[in-house]
Amino acid sequence: MSDAVHDVDVVVVGFGCAGGAAALEARRTDASVVVLERASGAGGSSAQSGGELYLGGGTAVQEALGFEDDADNMLAFLRAALGPHADEEKLRLYCEGSVEHFDWFCSLGLEFEKSLYDAPSWLPPTTDGLMWLGENAWPYDELARPVPRGHRPATCGFGGWLVMDRLVAACASAGVVTATDTRAVSLVVESGRVVGVRARRFGDDVTYRARRGVVVTTGGFADNPEMLSAHAPDLLGHGVVSDGGDDGSGIVMAQAVGAAVRRMSVVEVAYTALPALACRGMLVNARGERFVNEDVYPGLFSHAALHEPGPCWVVVDGQALEEVDEADLWGTVPSYAAETIEELESDLGMPPGALARTLAGYNDGAARGGDPLFHKNARWTRVLTGPFAAIDPRIGFHNPTHRAAPGATGFAGFTLGGLHTTVDGAVLSLGGDPIPGLYAAGRASSGMHGQGYVSGTSLGDGTFFGRRAGRAAAQSR
Amino acid sequence: MSDAVHDVDVVVVGFGCAGGAAALEARRTDASVVVLERASGAGGSSAQSGGELYLGGGTAVQEALGFEDDADNMLAFLRAALGPHADEEKLRLYCEGSVEHFDWFCSLGLEFEKSLYDAPSWLPPTTDGLMWLGENAWPYDELARPVPRGHRPATCGFGGWLVMDRLVAACASAGVVTATDTRAVSLVVESGRVVGVRARRFGDDVTYRARRGVVVTTGGFADNPEMLSAHAPDLLGHGVVSDGGDDGSGIVMAQAVGAAVRRMSVVEVAYTALPALACRGMLVNARGERFVNEDVYPGLFSHAALHEPGPCWVVVDGQALEEVDEADLWGTVPSYAAETIEELESDLGMPPGALARTLAGYNDGAARGGDPLFHKNARWTRVLTGPFAAIDPRIGFHNPTHRAAPGATGFAGFTLGGLHTTVDGAVLSLGGDPIPGLYAAGRASSGMHGQGYVSGTSLGDGTFFGRRAGRAAAQSR
Repeated sequence: MSDAVHDVDVVVVGFGCAGGAAALEARRTDASVVVLERASGAGGSSAQSGGELYLGGGTAVQEALGFEDDADNMLAFLRAALGPHADEEKLRLYCEGSVEHFDWFCSLGLEFEKSLYDAPSWLPPTTDGLMWLGENAWPYDELARPVPRGHRPATCGFGGWLVMDRLVAACASAGVVTATDTRAVSLVVESGRVVGVRARRFGDDVTYRARRGVVVTTGGFADNPEMLSAHAPDLLGHGVVSDGGDDGSGIVMAQAVGAAVRRMSVVEVAYTALPALACRGMLVNARGERFVNEDVYPGLFSHAALHEPGPCWVVVDGQALEEVDEADLWGTVPSYAAETIEELESDLGMPPGALARTLAGYNDGAARGGDPLFHKNARWTRVLTGPFAAIDPRIGFHNPTHRAAPGATGFAGFTLGGLHTTVDGAVLSLGGDPIPGLYAAGRASSGMHGQGYVSGTSLGDGTFFGRRAGRAAAQSR
Repeated sequence: MSDAVHDVDVVVVGFGCAGGAAALEARRTDASVVVLERASGAGGSSAQSGGELYLGGGTAVQEALGFEDDADNMLAFLRAALGPHADEEKLRLYCEGSVEHFDWFCSLGLEFEKSLYDAPSWLPPTTDGLMWLGENAWPYDELARPVPRGHRPATCGFGGWLVMDRLVAACASAGVVTATDTRAVSLVVESGRVVGVRARRFGDDVTYRARRGVVVTTGGFADNPEMLSAHAPDLLGHGVVSDGGDDGSGIVMAQAVGAAVRRMSVVEVAYTALPALACRGMLVNARGERFVNEDVYPGLFSHAALHEPGPCWVVVDGQALEEVDEADLWGTVPSYAAETIEELESDLGMPPGALARTLAGYNDGAARGGDPLFHKNARWTRVLTGPFAAIDPRIGFHNPTHRAAPGATGFAGFTLGGLHTTVDGAVLSLGGDPIPGLYAAGRASSGMHGQGYVSGTSLGDGTFFGRRAGRAAAQSR
């Protein structure tokens, strides 16, 4: 049994966005850095993601489009949107450093078009560089001056691969060493300090000794059903947003040396109700009642839908179906269509009169130009007239060819809880003190999120606090 | 510094219901047993509780009143009511052993009147020995044959003191030694086995060595804001149901020797909406919409209300106020009264037409003898006619003299997550193996609950699995 030993300054475990950011910043302090990656190449779940980056405070894209933003305004939004109980200190730093962080992405070679996609969407079918992520929807539009902050790398559709492509290239040219096919197994502790990582590569043991620090950036635990059952049962039975490797291994590895965790139950969920259709109609539960304004950030209606008993439906009229571009329909076809709302309500198995009463209230408000129940923006509020259609949001773009995939719930998500860290990524012990030599960032840690989520805040928080963790690890002695 | 050392077979930490049950059963195997209690007397949060015991499967009280029950029927209810994701193995054992567990309580000298309190309530103002806890409310009435299982010791109002009085007496006469004013500080580990507890008493160190095992029954962490913030933020800002000592100390003590935790985010919450009034009217949110059938177990409407944005209201008419006994009003007075529903809706600051539309739908169903939206039992469903009153559930029996206690949320709760244990109370390590010599039960552990709760299942699970843990510890070598 060979047991190769490598000596470096900083060992980073996992090459997603947090690992890449940590490695690059550590290396830029002149530390020698190796990133251990279990897969055969870098990228992780970050590379599979939409690629949105939640940034603001007055970025070049915001300014070019005439949106005035500042850190306080951004903080006011995020405190509410990522709350309740978001991490105030991490949030403040994130907002204050957001313009610099945007510039950092640009310095990696990422480009952002100076154009706005101006409608609710999970993923605009364009290359527009900016999108709204609920900032202009009630009640957020009253809590902060609404400006869009969803920054999108210039590619069509999913952009996570592009973010990772540029980050991996920057790491390589800075001299970061990547060890692929290398699965970290445990942390090496000597005299109470984390001094390395034991790993396996093609059946061999290999040890990476870290003179200064180890940064755990292994991602969350959405792919570990046992951990989900123990800590985040909301995701049980639903889909997973990951590259398949989010098994919580880094969290467990750190717990084994005494690390504390935080907010392990918090999850992000995406419900495949099409925002472009939903905002033009009504998102209703099995009782035919609306439960949220349909123009919110779609993750927010997803969370609300997750706790509604029974199926939900997007109810629209013919005009809405005509208005939405083919590309924004993601291959969806209505599950039910009916001339009258009474017919539709009966087809959907709702209590008699329930959907008709909801529609009457909705249309009553719309006729006066408003939405008295949920304050949906007037732009999306219109009297709905028959014929009507209902779309089953369980049938989404994940599988557009299936009208009813067996077992499909329409929900897919990932975990937001993890290791308890300081704003510099130092992992805290159960007793509350930093564990010398141990750092974490990204979804292996509990970041700035409370119980809420907005697209781009996971790549955002992962890279922002990944950079801080990398620098802190490189400076640790 | 004195350092007294005591040697016994089993050390139990904390003298609430789980600790008492563990101590008694351990002692009955002839083990020598000491219970360490931080307070100056036994009781803990159990003694402050309502005292309901969730028991069934055909107890003497159920049989005397003509209710046919069995373990499978009880399991079908609890699986749904304590779910989703309740612990199937613990649930099954609990249901199968429930009649024997009832008899055990009787053997302690607890008495139960053979009479039923037949209306929704947090705490009946009678000495009736049995009450419904949502078994006869939709959807549970369709998932299992509805029979009442809330067993009440024969005392008026809160009965937790009586349960603990009998349990403490039984322990004393069995020869269990109680060390009060003794605060456990840490576990003693030798060669990977827990062999004792270090404690403090009036400034002195004292060590209790356990030849066979230590049982941690210190309760949950509702009184520890830092732990709530890290793990169960749902309770932050709300009231706490405890004796003031639920600070999670036993959980942390066990984590310090490698124990795993489970479901730390799950909480019970009680909302002081008066069930007797709510079931006769409508429980509505700030949009004037109902969100649950008002005749459910009140903890269920509490959980639902916790996630409704804004205040909730109980809307009733004059007849409802007349029907409810003075004793069941807990001193409550309506916050608002109005001749018409439009007036009331305006007084409550609801969107115009919202409450009127809800009432129209409610009355429409009631006129036909039903509740098409939520299937509230016909017994409680009646056409509501003016004048109307609205009760603010934030003003409850905790402070009946205040119409609006500053900062009152109307919610108070406790935590249900804790140490990961087997059905015999063995505490599992982070790696999934039992930690030799270490046991836990009650709210220091994660019991049979998933994300739901029913009154009497915390005292029930605490004593049932406390007994098993005590026996297992006494037999451990």
